[in-house]
Amino acid sequence: MLIKNGNVIIFENDDVKVKKLDIRINGDTIEEIEEKLDEKTGEKVIDATDKVVMPGLINTHAHIAMSIFRGTFEGCDLYTWLNEKIWPMEAKLTEEQVYDATMLSILEMLSTGTTCVNDHYFFSKQIRKALEESKMRAVITRVLMDNDGKEASENRINEFVDLYESRDRNNDLITYTVSPHGLYTCSGEVLTKSRELALKYNLPIHVHFLESINEIESIKELHGDTGANVLKKYFDGLHIILAHGVKISDEDIKVLKTLDCGIAHCPISNLRLGCKIADTTKYLDEGLNVALGTDGQGSGNNLDMFEAMKIAGLIQGGIHENEKRINAKDVIKMATINGAKLLGLENKTGSIEVGKKADIIIVDISDELDNVKMLPNVDIVSNLVYNADGKNVDTTIVNGQVLMENRNVKVIDTNKVVKK
Amino acid sequence: MLIKNGNVIIFENDDVKVKKLDIRINGDTIEEIEEKLDEKTGEKVIDATDKVVMPGLINTHAHIAMSIFRGTFEGCDLYTWLNEKIWPMEAKLTEEQVYDATMLSILEMLSTGTTCVNDHYFFSKQIRKALEESKMRAVITRVLMDNDGKEASENRINEFVDLYESRDRNNDLITYTVSPHGLYTCSGEVLTKSRELALKYNLPIHVHFLESINEIESIKELHGDTGANVLKKYFDGLHIILAHGVKISDEDIKVLKTLDCGIAHCPISNLRLGCKIADTTKYLDEGLNVALGTDGQGSGNNLDMFEAMKIAGLIQGGIHENEKRINAKDVIKMATINGAKLLGLENKTGSIEVGKKADIIIVDISDELDNVKMLPNVDIVSNLVYNADGKNVDTTIVNGQVLMENRNVKVIDTNKVVKK
Repeated sequence: MLIKNGNVIIFENDDVKVKKLDIRINGDTIEEIEEKLDEKTGEKVIDATDKVVMPGLINTHAHIAMSIFRGTFEGCDLYTWLNEKIWPMEAKLTEEQVYDATMLSILEMLSTGTTCVNDHYFFSKQIRKALEESKMRAVITRVLMDNDGKEASENRINEFVDLYESRDRNNDLITYTVSPHGLYTCSGEVLTKSRELALKYNLPIHVHFLESINEIESIKELHGDTGANVLKKYFDGLHIILAHGVKISDEDIKVLKTLDCGIAHCPISNLRLGCKIADTTKYLDEGLNVALGTDGQGSGNNLDMFEAMKIAGLIQGGIHENEKRINAKDVIKMATINGAKLLGLENKTGSIEVGKKADIIIVDISDELDNVKMLPNVDIVSNLVYNADGKNVDTTIVNGQVLMENRNVKVIDTNKVVKK
Repeated sequence: MLIKNGNVIIFENDDVKVKKLDIRINGDTIEEIEEKLDEKTGEKVIDATDKVVMPGLINTHAHIAMSIFRGTFEGCDLYTWLNEKIWPMEAKLTEEQVYDATMLSILEMLSTGTTCVNDHYFFSKQIRKALEESKMRAVITRVLMDNDGKEASENRINEFVDLYESRDRNNDLITYTVSPHGLYTCSGEVLTKSRELALKYNLPIHVHFLESINEIESIKELHGDTGANVLKKYFDGLHIILAHGVKISDEDIKVLKTLDCGIAHCPISNLRLGCKIADTTKYLDEGLNVALGTDGQGSGNNLDMFEAMKIAGLIQGGIHENEKRINAKDVIKMATINGAKLLGLENKTGSIEVGKKADIIIVDISDELDNVKMLPNVDIVSNLVYNADGKNVDTTIVNGQVLMENRNVKVIDTNKVVKK
């Protein structure tokens, strides 16, 4: 397959460049990137004139079955939302609902340019079934916690082991994390068990971390220490994906820098739950890896990573008054290559480079009425972050396979899913 | 004209409701609103099944000719942006550029559901010409300031008088404000002159107010007092439109409550210029009127008021930690009825009510792939604010005239404007 004449987003050293390039994909892999490539006989050609060709977006923290909870409540704080809204509703979920809700979310992701998602939920076999059918890249888990007693906790651990052991070893698209829910909902026992499982299966840890101010106190009560020190105690030496990280202090940063960790920043969810704004400018300056996520639709509105990019860029101006802060190029990296690094997938995805898997999206920025808010299009990177949205994506390619073309999603029966 | 079967956004007391209603428009006016209205012979009928029918959006602070400066710089603070970027570029603008840029912005506004805009710029006759051709509702001005000397200031005042005196008295769609640029760029002399003009012509004042932290000091230096006290001194008794109002202290609020004023909140511009977040939750609690604006595209990305709504709602969670804050219903009012009040147009526009002018937009929320991020659509108001964007608008009606239908803009040659 040949993608011709596009404005290609390329990472060179630390910079983000836009170059007119052709890209050849062979099977699942990017084979050639040149200024001009000739079409081979019989080769599928995608014309990307007046379009942007960029790495597929990587959503590093979501609960994708939560589309079913979209817009059912507003203006909660995190603890009220979990205890009074989400957890009681989740207790009533059925397998079929989780499958249907996951399919709806996959449609939302593929149609808005997300090629890889890091999920954090339960009913994980249903989620895996939907993901396998969709052919998108994903990292999944079965969330662990023991704030409701020992038996429930044991069941969760068994479900995780069963999930992992029953994996399709030929499926390169789906990988796994070990996911204690949070340091305030897991005792030392579950954290120790998580460490053992991560070591045994060689998997990263994926954990909610300092999402809200209340969590600082809760962790202190449960573990007698700061969140960063608890991480260090249980997960030193493991690769750790920290969801949120809004309330990271300068002291915490010193500890985090000694760990193999990074942050899945979910700005929209943080704002909607009144958690304030994570200082991603500072985290990046300190050398921490910061990637982007949407969180679930219950708190995070939707799974459109373009919206996450826009908000992530904008809100730094809400805490850095008259100061230098992250720019549109930083945000593009957060949504792509930083995400790949955070998920341990940087050899496979996150950038358009020869040898990587072809996880690529094509974004329409042509001079049409729907794009009037990008005109005059003098800064493509700025327009991608601040003026585009998921609807601008017209083609989504994962692992060399075209999953959406000209906004027709090929792998899913769109009508059926939407009607459900 | 009859709009049938829509989900109509209605303001009842302080609440925002969604009701299945039919709306009859006679000429420029809303004549009937009932659960079921029968079609008259020969009457134009718009079927709004599965769509939202809502008041047209009112952009209470913009510099619409600034589409020409979109995306040309990023990460500035306000003073650097004005002094080093915008003012030097503006000095080179031609009348033709202003006209073309204004047309591009009108296309952007009509296609994203804005039916009325409050502009703040110069070359105002060109802007008026474009607005008159487009048939949209607008409030215009010729900005006054004297930080570059007396002669330039006199010219500006003369241009304003000429603009106002040359108005088409039969054109009900375009009204005027007297607009000193800001309290930090206008001496007492210009502010006094502004007061005289506002009294003479019975017009509101439209002024930048406490947009950035630097402004507090600049006003102190120039006038020896706080911004709120300077307003009181020069504009007491007049209707005052305050653009931005990010840095309003509790002391300022006490003074503002004694004035006939309200705030044009421009959240995206404030964030992009690193001005931090206006506490609109507090302003509304204190009884101040808060409406919404986009500012110009140089700082504010674009003129899509749906984006302004989304960001206005979200960012209150960036300053109100675990606290009650404005919700989606408040935001809908900010973008419509509060805007009409702020511009002194509440008898004409801002809500769907019998007797008001028909400034109405129809928003597509049907079960299609492009709306997948609204599903399941259990809370229409929340979806309008948090998951819709300007591209969801399919019909825009101003003063009873359909300016866009099924995303075809009728009053402007879209292709010509976009290509320019």
